[in-house]
Formats: sequence, structure tokens, C-alpha cells
Amino acid sequence: MRQVAILGAGMIPFGRRDEDSLVDMLSYASLAAIDDAGVGDRPIDAVYVGNMAAGLFNHQSSVASALVDRINLLPAAADSVENGPASGGSALKNGILAVASGYYDLVLVAAGEKMRDVIGPVATDVVATMTHPLAEYIYGATLPSMAAMFARLYMEKYGVTPKHLAQVAIKNQENGLLNPYAHIHMKITLEGILTSPHSVVNNPIVADPLRLYDCCPVSDGAAACLLCPADMVANVAADADKPRVVVAGFGQATDTHTLQERQDPTDLKAVTLAAQQAFERAKLTPQDIDVAELHDAFTILEIAESEHAGFFDKGEGAKALEEGQTRIGGKLPINPSGGLKARGHPVGATGVAQVVELVWQLRGDAGERQVKGAEKGFSINFGGFGNNVVAFVLRRES
Amino acid sequence: MRQVAILGAGMIPFGRRDEDSLVDMLSYASLAAIDDAGVGDRPIDAVYVGNMAAGLFNHQSSVASALVDRINLLPAAADSVENGPASGGSALKNGILAVASGYYDLVLVAAGEKMRDVIGPVATDVVATMTHPLAEYIYGATLPSMAAMFARLYMEKYGVTPKHLAQVAIKNQENGLLNPYAHIHMKITLEGILTSPHSVVNNPIVADPLRLYDCCPVSDGAAACLLCPADMVANVAADADKPRVVVAGFGQATDTHTLQERQDPTDLKAVTLAAQQAFERAKLTPQDIDVAELHDAFTILEIAESEHAGFFDKGEGAKALEEGQTRIGGKLPINPSGGLKARGHPVGATGVAQVVELVWQLRGDAGERQVKGAEKGFSINFGGFGNNVVAFVLRRES
Repeated sequence: MRQVAILGAGMIPFGRRDEDSLVDMLSYASLAAIDDAGVGDRPIDAVYVGNMAAGLFNHQSSVASALVDRINLLPAAADSVENGPASGGSALKNGILAVASGYYDLVLVAAGEKMRDVIGPVATDVVATMTHPLAEYIYGATLPSMAAMFARLYMEKYGVTPKHLAQVAIKNQENGLLNPYAHIHMKITLEGILTSPHSVVNNPIVADPLRLYDCCPVSDGAAACLLCPADMVANVAADADKPRVVVAGFGQATDTHTLQERQDPTDLKAVTLAAQQAFERAKLTPQDIDVAELHDAFTILEIAESEHAGFFDKGEGAKALEEGQTRIGGKLPINPSGGLKARGHPVGATGVAQVVELVWQLRGDAGERQVKGAEKGFSINFGGFGNNVVAFVLRRES
Repeated sequence: MRQVAILGAGMIPFGRRDEDSLVDMLSYASLAAIDDAGVGDRPIDAVYVGNMAAGLFNHQSSVASALVDRINLLPAAADSVENGPASGGSALKNGILAVASGYYDLVLVAAGEKMRDVIGPVATDVVATMTHPLAEYIYGATLPSMAAMFARLYMEKYGVTPKHLAQVAIKNQENGLLNPYAHIHMKITLEGILTSPHSVVNNPIVADPLRLYDCCPVSDGAAACLLCPADMVANVAADADKPRVVVAGFGQATDTHTLQERQDPTDLKAVTLAAQQAFERAKLTPQDIDVAELHDAFTILEIAESEHAGFFDKGEGAKALEEGQTRIGGKLPINPSGGLKARGHPVGATGVAQVVELVWQLRGDAGERQVKGAEKGFSINFGGFGNNVVAFVLRRES
């Protein structure tokens, strides 16, 4: 297996982008990644698009074919990859395998979602199409409702409090203020969202115990990476001295489709397994990681994933958060980008957006939110309700 | 790159399957492929699902995650791959790359579509979501209308006649009669569909010059392959002496999204390129091929693809058909399965169904429709209107 380098990374500001189509957004992010890679007009062999639901959100299919034509990459091979909210992670994994196999050299992975073509309740319904059709969907289960049940159990079992959840939101929105690509630029306080009498109005309950600020927004956005074999970087990149990031390891694991069938619904087995696979391949441990992007679609998930990925013991994630260990400047900064909470969560885009943030962090290009001296990064992209999880370990070379 | 063997192949009868969900169908085909491979309970590392539009047809997403849970393959990695009507081919290509890379050993590729959850006009609309949203879709372009314009040009340029088109339909429906997996089991005659006065009633015009019997039906169905490294076959298969088929080569190429932007709209560049790539990798030529499965979603496409893939010179495909060269028993049997025309075209399933048929043909397992002594097979899976094409060359080993 050839080692794979992330030669270029690109992203567009997430948010409400009424003026852009899905293919527009994918094009902007792709061109940014290609420019960043400095490969000039060198032909790109294959393109992977991470996207969850262009059919239902935008009444469009074959988006990868549309993208290669739009940005003049013909006759590159082009496929879309779908794995719910982990579609970006899955697209990237398959792009990596395509380069690793030796069949393709330059591979573009673009991931995006245009969710705001539909109204909010419809977006929630489209996202819910990933639940079990007969055991969950027909009973009205949505992702917020499943996350709420998970949160309630997790809080009871591990002593996580509403204050802990609020602290995730506050930290990530604080980080988002430093990220020009973030959807939400708004400072929030514990008083405003939890302890003042107005907090029930400012921060209404969505699905008890989760409130508005425990949930990620509905966003449009796209992100992209250009991959090549690590030993080819010097040949294809204009600026071969630029710090480069390689994929040290990756993993992917599945769990039961329904939450109810898990022996212990608080145990996110697929997160544990995907992370273990990624660390094993990378020959690294959680202790080696300098910065992590976790899938905080709901605040509880950042805490739970930080434990299941091996950064903290079970029940210790909330404590680490409370102590500021996961803030920028802390021992293990989590979601310096603002995470899904503040950067936004255009579902299919997220897995690649996380990796783009890590590439920037490891190259020292993250501006005001830079984690000083970060050399190794980690991400979790959480598909379904934890039933299909993709993890990456990245490392700066040179 | 490791060479990849197709260790097992499975399919379910295509047609109208009201009693089965998409995941049901994928499960049956997958279990058939796993049984055929004879790998027992050996864990499968990764699963790829080829599917075009479960969102729009079935209001479901994350189908690959659902499948691995349903057939107890947890915690295997699982992704869906979409490339319109070439989703099956793209899923298979990515399964092959995953094995070739060395990262995964046993990989299941299942492809399926349940189109008959919606009524006919809606199915045509869903399929049309692959056209260009602004240059084609909004003007009411559908795949039959684009195929009709293509047919008209092709007929004028190369002297293809309505009789030639009818001969494709007659041959493929004849073959379909021998295929228990085919959707359409009905003998048709030139008189019945073209020359008798009743033919305008029996075979009405869909989009001039294409008539009903020039178009594939709207079908439900699924097919699956189990892949492993060629050098591992003896270790994992119960019956190591069974004839085995390897992927000798594959290719994939894209063309302009819109038909109108092609310099010569009758030139299917992506077919030519994908086939060239596949033959080059396989170190074989079109003359080496014993049996081919081509993407006859419309009769004209079988003729055009047989030329663009290099089997016949331009303008000679119709003649070869007329002479019976492409019938079972002819020089190059095309679509012994009945093709999309008679086997049916559950869009996402087709690319894998074609390869399953080739595996059966090369192993001598194709029953009454067996192409005698076939050792090398070829397929074209045609995405968009020829804007994203996947080709495979298969070879029997031992």
C-alpha cells in the first residue's frame, strides 16, 4: 500500500448560500484545493464526491459527473460516495484507497451538501432517512430525538450535566468566532443559554435534555482535498518545501442499524473500533494527538466520542472539558474549527471539512485558532447514529 | 496492485418485487454471492453498495449501513457508491481498488434499485435527475428523449434503420427467455413490433424514433459479487478447484454533462476511453473477448457501444447484428443475459448484474444461454447519457 499525502486542502465558508448550487459549492472548494496543492494543469485521475442526499435536498443525482465537467477535469473517473453524515469521511477513505492501490495518482475528494434548498422540518426528515425504516423512521424518530435519548442515558451513567453540554457549545462557538469558514459567529454564555431566567426562551428545548444550542445548525457548504502518493509530492507540487500532511492511518466500522438493539446504547462501539484501526495503522496512540476534530452534531457526542476514541477514560471526558483541557491552548484542543456546532454541518461535507481543518492546523495555517506546534491530528466522522464511523489520523511530514 | 478475483456471484430475479424492500433484495443477492464463494463464516472486511436513488425512490439513505447490519457483517466498513445507471459499475470498481490496495481482503459489492416503489412517470423523472439541471432537466429532457435524439443522429450518420433497432430488441428478448433472472420473458417478432399494421399499437412510439420495445423496462432487482485477492482464493474458498474469474482490467471515463456540448454527439468518447483503459490493463484486445454485456438501456446503445468499445468499426455494428454475429452462437455474443432490455434495468444494480452474468458465462454456469467455451468477458456500464462510463474485462483462470 502506498502512503498517501494530502497535497492540497480547500473549503468555502459554510452557512446559508442561497446563491450557490451544490455543484457550484463543490467547484469552489475543489478549485481551492487544487490551487493549494500547486499542481498547475496536471491532469487529475479520479474524483470522489462525498454527499448524503442531493436527490432529496436538490433533486439531483450523478453529482460527481457534473463536477468533473464543470471544473474541466474530463475524462477523470468520478463517483459519489454516500454514508449519511459520514459521506465525506467515506469519500475520503475511498480516495485514499484509490491512490494507495497504485491505480490512480492524483485524486480529488470533494464533499458538500446544500441542505437549505428545503425548509428546516424537511431537512430533519431527509436526515432521518438514515434511520431504520421499520423500527425507527415510521415512529417519527429523528436524529435529535435519538441523540436526546442517548444523552439522557449517558448523563445518568456518567454524571454528565446540562452544564457540561452547555460548555461544549460555548467552547465551540468561541472557536467558531475565530474561524472565517464557520456558519455561526456568535458568542454565547452559560448565563444566556442555561442559568438566566431568559435561557428557556434563548435556548428552548429541542428534544429533552437537548436544547437549541446543543444541536448543530442546518448548513450549506463544501470542502475538498487533493491526494497523491507521498513519494510523488516533490514531483507534482510547485512548492515542494511547503509543509505536507500525510494520512498516517484511517479506520471505519459499523454497528447495529437501530440504537435499541445495542447491548449498551451508551457504548459507541463503531467509534472505538474505527479509532483503534486508525491508530494501529498510524502506529500512534491517542496520547500522541495534538488536535482533534470530533463529530459534535449534538454536544453530548463530543464528550462521548472523546472517550470512545481513547483520549479520556469513560466518564472523564466531561471533566476534561470542564478543566479546559479541550480548549485551544489546552492539553488536547477539540474542534478548534468550531466543530459541527459552529462551523456548521452540511451533512455530506463534514468528514472532509474536518480533515481540511486538521491539514491547516498541522501546517500552521489556522490563523487565530491555531493550535501551536500541532503535528498530529485526529478526526471522527459519525454516520447514522453511530452505526458507520470513519476515523483519520494525520501527521505533518518535514 | 494486487490482482482481484471474483470469488462469488449472486443475483435475484429482476422484475416487480412488491414484497421486498431494497435492503431485502440486496440481502438476498449478497447471501447468494457469499454462499457461491464458499467462504463460510469468514469475516468480510468491507461492503460497497451500488445504488442510484434510494433517497428519491424509497425515501431511504445509508443503505450500505443497513445492509451490513441486516446480514450480520458488523463491524465491516460499508459505503454506498452512486454514479447514476453506472452505480453498480462504480461500486464494483471501488471494491476492486479496496482489495487491490491491500487494505481489505474480503469485500462484498452489492448493487440494487427498487424503482417500482414509485409510478412510471416518477421513475422517469428520478432517472432524469442525472441530466444537467439548468441545460437539460428544466426543459423536460428525460433519458428516453436524449436517447431518441442520439438515435436519430446515429441512424442518419451510419445508416442504422428501425429494423436494426428492432433486431436488438428481438435478440435480447430471445436471450431473456433463457434467463430465469430476467424481468421480461416474452418472445417478440419483427412483424409484431415493426412491420404489421398492429405494430403501432403493440409498439407505440415513446420518443421518435424509439418505440416501447426499444426501451428497457422499469425494474426492481439486485446483484452481488464477493471479491478477494487472486492469490488468496485457495485459502478462503471451500472449493478451490471451482473455476475462478479474475478482474483482468477495468476503466472509467467521463464526458461532458450535456449532450449538446459534445463536438460530435454520436461520438461516445467515454465508452471508447473506458474500454481502452480496461483492455490496456488486461493486455487484451476486443478480438480476444468471447462474450460481452453492453448497456442497452435503449436498443441504439447496444449497437453504438459495440462499435465504440472496439468490437466493430463505426457503422459496422448494425451489420454484425444483422448477420447474427452478436447472437448466442455468433462470433461475439452480446447480452446473452437478455441485457437491460429483457433482464431489466434496476438502475443501480445493472453494472454488477452484467458482471455476475459474465462470471456465470466464464465458469460455464449460464445454463441454456451458455456461450460455449467463453473464457474472456467484457462489460460496459453507461452512466448519465454516456458521461460516466465503467468497463470491465474478466478472465477465467484455471
